Amino acid sequence: MLVYGKNVARDLIKKNKNIRKIIIQDNFDDKEIISLIEKNKFNVETKSKKEIDNLCSGLHQGIILDIPDYQYSELDDLLNEEIIVILDHLEDPHNLGAIIRTCEAAGIKGVIIPKDRQVGVNATVMKTSVGTLDNVNVAVVSNIVNAIEKLKKNGFWIVGTALENSTDYREINYDGKIALVIGNEGAGISALVSKKCDFLAKIPMYGQTNSLNASVAAGIMIYEIIRNRK
Amino acid sequence: MLVYGKNVARDLIKKNKNIRKIIIQDNFDDKEIISLIEKNKFNVETKSKKEIDNLCSGLHQGIILDIPDYQYSELDDLLNEEIIVILDHLEDPHNLGAIIRTCEAAGIKGVIIPKDRQVGVNATVMKTSVGTLDNVNVAVVSNIVNAIEKLKKNGFWIVGTALENSTDYREINYDGKIALVIGNEGAGISALVSKKCDFLAKIPMYGQTNSLNASVAAGIMIYEIIRNRK
Repeated sequence: MLVYGKNVARDLIKKNKNIRKIIIQDNFDDKEIISLIEKNKFNVETKSKKEIDNLCSGLHQGIILDIPDYQYSELDDLLNEEIIVILDHLEDPHNLGAIIRTCEAAGIKGVIIPKDRQVGVNATVMKTSVGTLDNVNVAVVSNIVNAIEKLKKNGFWIVGTALENSTDYREINYDGKIALVIGNEGAGISALVSKKCDFLAKIPMYGQTNSLNASVAAGIMIYEIIRNRK
Repeated sequence: MLVYGKNVARDLIKKNKNIRKIIIQDNFDDKEIISLIEKNKFNVETKSKKEIDNLCSGLHQGIILDIPDYQYSELDDLLNEEIIVILDHLEDPHNLGAIIRTCEAAGIKGVIIPKDRQVGVNATVMKTSVGTLDNVNVAVVSNIVNAIEKLKKNGFWIVGTALENSTDYREINYDGKIALVIGNEGAGISALVSKKCDFLAKIPMYGQTNSLNASVAAGIMIYEIIRNRK
């Protein structure tokens, strides 16, 4: 996987992560990063701006790292957690990255994503999760409904977010093991998943639009769930 | 200002906004949008994908609208609001858009941004705020510290977010008129602004990293401020 940008590069080099190759632009002049690179013995390649532009679609700031793909966890690895976040087909990597970052800040170590029609851990997620992926395990499952059933058998209460037939998010009892489901940016939580939820929480809204950005909604719900625990 | 993408286009055309020109890709085939365009008498231009790619840097989905620049408000227009959000030099348009969207959902109608070193209302903000800019007034000020002093004289309590010398965000009394300050993505709230705050709130964090995405932190704080009001 190619990841890019000075912050990501600095973080991975400092943590002495497995880096296959570092590609820097011929006029790259970040002294801190250059000194970090020189201290270790990385495989470094120099390329022109145009060549680097062709390698990645985002703001690379003159540095690209080739690192091993993210190693996903299994659902079974997460069953002992107290709180898990399930993402029901999220599309935007900025949202996935921000949610992983919020989980890490809140002390949540387990995130579940479906295999298909869901953004995975890519370069943008690496960037927006700002180094928090080390402390959060992302598990891939082939079917969210089956995963929810397994979580229920293992003592989890399933909390979804919905506008209809739902309870004010401040009035739900979040004691016990909780799995929070965050829905797709456009469609929300799917009907099948919604039916499996033990609680449907509503974040009240007072404007003309009636939805929040997925990572903002996740942040509000996550901090509500840990509100009385910590 | 050029804005782009099907959702933004559909929203603006439906609202019958002032649209100077619509540029569509030669093979554009969204039937709903085409029918909306035909119903009204817009100035439409057809271009190739390559020409449209050259006009904008984001995912345009084959449609660009040329609309008048966003009309900012003045600080004086916001003094009668109950809650205001002040952004202390935010850089990322996705964050500005998501915060405007959260404000609208929470019923907050006033946002203040500084003139310099701050992202303004651009095409990305239009997109990420998903049509909520109609209900939120964004005012530009030349100096945030002066704006805060004026807000104080008009009865506002100033609440900032900070990690040090701060109070748990759940323990602050948010009665009265509140102006919430959200800091820059990297540097947080500036020292001068921090000194002017009546309260510094801390969102507790339990991971190894100690910051949240700016729009997520804003969402948690905004819903805490309205928690006991609505």
